[in-house]
Amino acid sequence: MNKNKHIAPPVTLVVFGASGDLARRKLMPALYSLYRQGLLPPDFAVLGFARTKYSDEAFRSLVHDSLKEYSDQEVDESNWADFAVHLFYQPGSYNDRASFDALAAHVDELDAQFATEGNRIFYLSTPPMVFKPITTLLSEAGLARRDSDGSFTRLIIEKPFGRDLQSAQDLNRHLHQHFDEDQIYRIDHYLGKETVQNILVFRFGNGIFEPIWNRNYVDNVQITVAESLGIGTRGGYYDQAGAIRDMVQNHVMQLVALTAMEPPVSYDAKAVRDQKVNVMRSIQPLRKVGYAEGCVVRAQYGRGMVDGQEIPGYLETPGVAPDSTTETFVAWRMQINNWRWNGVPFYVRTGKAMAKKLTEINVIFKRPPLMFFEEVDNKFHIPSNEITLRIQPNEGIHLRFDAKRPGPELDVEPVTMDFLYEEAFHRESAEAYERLLLDALLGDSTLFIRRDEVEVAWDRVTTVLDSWRGQEEEALRTTGKPLRLPTYAPGSWGPPEADALLAAEGRRWRNR
Amino acid sequence: MNKNKHIAPPVTLVVFGASGDLARRKLMPALYSLYRQGLLPPDFAVLGFARTKYSDEAFRSLVHDSLKEYSDQEVDESNWADFAVHLFYQPGSYNDRASFDALAAHVDELDAQFATEGNRIFYLSTPPMVFKPITTLLSEAGLARRDSDGSFTRLIIEKPFGRDLQSAQDLNRHLHQHFDEDQIYRIDHYLGKETVQNILVFRFGNGIFEPIWNRNYVDNVQITVAESLGIGTRGGYYDQAGAIRDMVQNHVMQLVALTAMEPPVSYDAKAVRDQKVNVMRSIQPLRKVGYAEGCVVRAQYGRGMVDGQEIPGYLETPGVAPDSTTETFVAWRMQINNWRWNGVPFYVRTGKAMAKKLTEINVIFKRPPLMFFEEVDNKFHIPSNEITLRIQPNEGIHLRFDAKRPGPELDVEPVTMDFLYEEAFHRESAEAYERLLLDALLGDSTLFIRRDEVEVAWDRVTTVLDSWRGQEEEALRTTGKPLRLPTYAPGSWGPPEADALLAAEGRRWRNR
Repeated sequence: MNKNKHIAPPVTLVVFGASGDLARRKLMPALYSLYRQGLLPPDFAVLGFARTKYSDEAFRSLVHDSLKEYSDQEVDESNWADFAVHLFYQPGSYNDRASFDALAAHVDELDAQFATEGNRIFYLSTPPMVFKPITTLLSEAGLARRDSDGSFTRLIIEKPFGRDLQSAQDLNRHLHQHFDEDQIYRIDHYLGKETVQNILVFRFGNGIFEPIWNRNYVDNVQITVAESLGIGTRGGYYDQAGAIRDMVQNHVMQLVALTAMEPPVSYDAKAVRDQKVNVMRSIQPLRKVGYAEGCVVRAQYGRGMVDGQEIPGYLETPGVAPDSTTETFVAWRMQINNWRWNGVPFYVRTGKAMAKKLTEINVIFKRPPLMFFEEVDNKFHIPSNEITLRIQPNEGIHLRFDAKRPGPELDVEPVTMDFLYEEAFHRESAEAYERLLLDALLGDSTLFIRRDEVEVAWDRVTTVLDSWRGQEEEALRTTGKPLRLPTYAPGSWGPPEADALLAAEGRRWRNR
Repeated sequence: MNKNKHIAPPVTLVVFGASGDLARRKLMPALYSLYRQGLLPPDFAVLGFARTKYSDEAFRSLVHDSLKEYSDQEVDESNWADFAVHLFYQPGSYNDRASFDALAAHVDELDAQFATEGNRIFYLSTPPMVFKPITTLLSEAGLARRDSDGSFTRLIIEKPFGRDLQSAQDLNRHLHQHFDEDQIYRIDHYLGKETVQNILVFRFGNGIFEPIWNRNYVDNVQITVAESLGIGTRGGYYDQAGAIRDMVQNHVMQLVALTAMEPPVSYDAKAVRDQKVNVMRSIQPLRKVGYAEGCVVRAQYGRGMVDGQEIPGYLETPGVAPDSTTETFVAWRMQINNWRWNGVPFYVRTGKAMAKKLTEINVIFKRPPLMFFEEVDNKFHIPSNEITLRIQPNEGIHLRFDAKRPGPELDVEPVTMDFLYEEAFHRESAEAYERLLLDALLGDSTLFIRRDEVEVAWDRVTTVLDSWRGQEEEALRTTGKPLRLPTYAPGSWGPPEADALLAAEGRRWRNR
């Protein structure tokens, strides 16, 4: 292991779904970028696997085109050929034992050709319905080896990982028949984002934030993951998912965990994930009947304008059932019952067709215990202090505080101290996939989701889903009609019900 | 009182030293600016008094010229005449009873002419040697009236207020024979600066800084008041003063007090000054023999370059005694013995001919209790967090913290969050004198120095002065020669001895 230099060890990387969207948009550009940075060893091979029939040459040219289209770097034609010789392809079926036997032979061949020391990574960049057949067949073909003799076998799995607690548990049980937990790398690409990782550095690499990062000083925490676009042509897929499955169970839960977790005993995969699991376990489940009603708001966007173009309402979108109760927006007042956070609401929200594309965490602090500047002139009102961790766009950190307005009067006014990533470092953040792929190659699972993490997140989300099913059955029984969700205008910050959730406690969403 | 609108009440303002430098550079521009902002009432009169013989007209044109030269605003000729009719002049001697009888008559006359309701302010913008004669004669001429019948009489006194504890006490006793303490406004123009006032708003108008503003989280505090120019032609004056009298006893002590004080019970003159006095009383006096040696460094600049021009060393400066022990630089490790600060050194320094003109307060925080990011890659070293309150130039507040450097490795790097006054408010800070003059007119003494404040500041400074006299006598006794102070190069940050003061405790000055 070249851990100190962070150069990946020799390896054969098998990419299932190699001709798919994710592989072309994200994985291949990430691989190429690692290669360009010298972070891949000379002894590596990439073996694409998918149903489409490509030759190695055709696959290489597919990758080349993908890089041209999606990589943020120019393709350097002088070393493209050096990179391309590492790329191979094998067509096959995800349900066919023969394909996997052929795959096993091909992997052995590449192992010998590139001296990859028996190290293999299987990347499941496929729809979730084939996760089980692929892993079963990997096992049957002898490819699901437990780590031994200093060589490793790893499995990287894309989201979604289940669609509720039961299916996630079921998938975990299945995987564990063939792989150990420390061979499994469940991706949430949010954890690969620089600014998401920086939450931990910000909190624990500095001495001055942690003392005020608790119920004594924090009034509430708001986490927003807003998308400006509607569902577009993905109605069929989305109507089976919804905002809470698509965004809350993974990304939002991860942001909550990183924001709220206790300091880990060290910065390694076990310690960090132990603390994330701890805090997620402290999120109050909404098991009791009616709990979700007071704490969670769901809604669908109506017809309206996005980016100056009219879009159909969610229920009018092709692929969406006309009486669908799938939510395109969800706001959840989470309660974290532990010593640090009890009494501090975590208001999280995510939605499609919202006012802007924005991901941020706002930690809003209590007012000073004595606001004596009010005595000088009571026309002003000292607003709360706030730390904003902006994940996207314009990645940065902002601290809001009150300062004296210049002039002979003692007026105060909120101002911000600003830190912008790009200004500070004059270089763009690395792509999330680049980081995650390298970590998986290096065997560092800190930024991947552990079994207990994914299950506790699903557990809490499933209590909401169950409560919603209860609401829907109740509506059908009492009115004879399917439940209709509240709606919100595209380009807004969600339905009035989401504002009411905070207003009931004398608070407001920080919209900007 | 138009306190709510912050418009000054009717008043006659008598300016002693009206033809002097300070009056022309600062007072008259400040008065005119208040007038332009509508903060002076129609019923006001300004009566200049000095030895030089001017007519009212000549004085008005002197003021007009001063505004043109020193005001940061254009003189608006259309309303200049309206302003000028309020200006009067009376020549006289500061030691001559007849002059003061004439002054009394003149004041009565203006009082009637401008309906100033018997309100008078006497501004002593003169050398300190005439503070006593002026106040004695004001008293003898019947002008030092105690406040009564709703009219007021106030005395504004410029610095220096004494040259050691004894002379300051003596002057206070003298003033109190003729005026009550609440009639006396001792100016330290630093307190009129926006950013100095903002120290209190920053600390107490926000809830998030105070919890970490103490010995649990702060490692040390550094206060720098650096001037880039040498003594120039002021050798005669300066050699009688020195850095500790000229800067530390007043400005630096005020910055220490505002940085270190406890929250006042309210924002008024008594409450704020009570807390300032409390913390100044907690500064350890250096009474014991040898104490100053370990805590205070003094030095003189040598010959060298300032702004590309060669300047003579301090001892070669005209007006300076060739064997002078007057310091042009002083660094003092103050110890504040109270519950909040015990064990946290306050390193203060001020000097002439230093690297740049700069006034700032750096609050440097302890490292996090567990620095686990070091484990990832021990080549980096997490530096301390720091809050910088920049008084001048580029007034602002900066927070230094560690952030993740973009890239696949987990490197951290110090970055800053920045707040700049001018960017935030798009308007320049008001001149310090404008604020202070208006406050004195309004009867708000919060930003003026109270008797006990000036005396405790002198007390602590006098322990240093006494210790220095001891050193000098000792040197003369043992070597037969006068003590020679360490020197430093113009354009540097002071002598090596000042660096050693911090290095002895494993710390460094934050120079930038």
